[in-house]
Amino acid sequence: MKISLGAKPIFFPLPVFLVGSYDTAGKPNIMTAAWGGLCCAEPPLFAVSIRRQRWTYEAVLQRKSFTINVPTGTMAGQVDFAGIASGEKVDKFAQLHFTPVKSTFVDAPYVEECPAVLECALHSTQDLGSHMQFIGEIKDVKITDECLDDEKKPLMSLINPIIYDGVGKNYHKLGASLGKAFAGGKIFWQELNE
Amino acid sequence: MKISLGAKPIFFPLPVFLVGSYDTAGKPNIMTAAWGGLCCAEPPLFAVSIRRQRWTYEAVLQRKSFTINVPTGTMAGQVDFAGIASGEKVDKFAQLHFTPVKSTFVDAPYVEECPAVLECALHSTQDLGSHMQFIGEIKDVKITDECLDDEKKPLMSLINPIIYDGVGKNYHKLGASLGKAFAGGKIFWQELNE
Repeated sequence: MKISLGAKPIFFPLPVFLVGSYDTAGKPNIMTAAWGGLCCAEPPLFAVSIRRQRWTYEAVLQRKSFTINVPTGTMAGQVDFAGIASGEKVDKFAQLHFTPVKSTFVDAPYVEECPAVLECALHSTQDLGSHMQFIGEIKDVKITDECLDDEKKPLMSLINPIIYDGVGKNYHKLGASLGKAFAGGKIFWQELNE
Repeated sequence: MKISLGAKPIFFPLPVFLVGSYDTAGKPNIMTAAWGGLCCAEPPLFAVSIRRQRWTYEAVLQRKSFTINVPTGTMAGQVDFAGIASGEKVDKFAQLHFTPVKSTFVDAPYVEECPAVLECALHSTQDLGSHMQFIGEIKDVKITDECLDDEKKPLMSLINPIIYDGVGKNYHKLGASLGKAFAGGKIFWQELNE
């Protein structure tokens, strides 16, 4: 039986990532976000929603650049801090002992300690209400060499991203594989065509 | 050391969910998607990107409605099938033994077997290139009663959503908790204010 919870922003699972930018004073900053993801293949685009009140908001508009930094499982405490503290008052890179690296293609810093990084140039913004949706064109994806296989394909199990529960306010590990995509479904497909 | 992979749509982790709609013939249909998520709190909005070629594309435009259905870990095979087969040729609900239920607030069917469902009314569309971004206003969230706690809060561990690896084309289980949000970070916060 299904229970109605009303019109609320609830969804599972959520990703969790750090949005990197140079703030209005030129200081490297990060904020934790969970409302975002890929939204187009050609061109490759990433969307992230940010409230107007956040210190990152003006920073992204000014430099028209941001990075998306995927933290790994051992970084949950740091990720949580970066979602609580504001870059207006705190140097989060210094506080968390993270290393800001200037991006190759855009005017924003990335977090060296994060195993996967997307360098994004601001493509468009969309005012949705409480949140502005920033869409960035992915100019480069950078992966720590230890998380790549022999064909330079990133391995999600090694990147080990964190999954966020926005209702229970909990960070989760990535679990074991449930099987290959475009494979399990073929069982049904074959039955259908017999 | 970081290795550049170029301008590609790569991100971890991705969610995986079923987009429900009535197709142009009135038949309930679902498609599997991974490029989407929450994008606004007030109003509560959900964004999903869909290629023009998909059978769901016209369906959503016609009825200005869709549902987001969160599958649970045991449904990876069905989810995979729903991403391979096209509703133009196949009745996926029948094939997968899923039960289509007419939504309460929008003109789209949801999947009874999925533990979490979002009923969405089309809010806006944004042509991004290969993909159209459909933004839906969440009119209701429905959760299977067994996945709610005593205060009617959905428990992500019981919903047990699937995590998708878009590079390795793999479905993954949700793993164990890494700790509470707005908690772990306070350790750093306290140090800072001492």
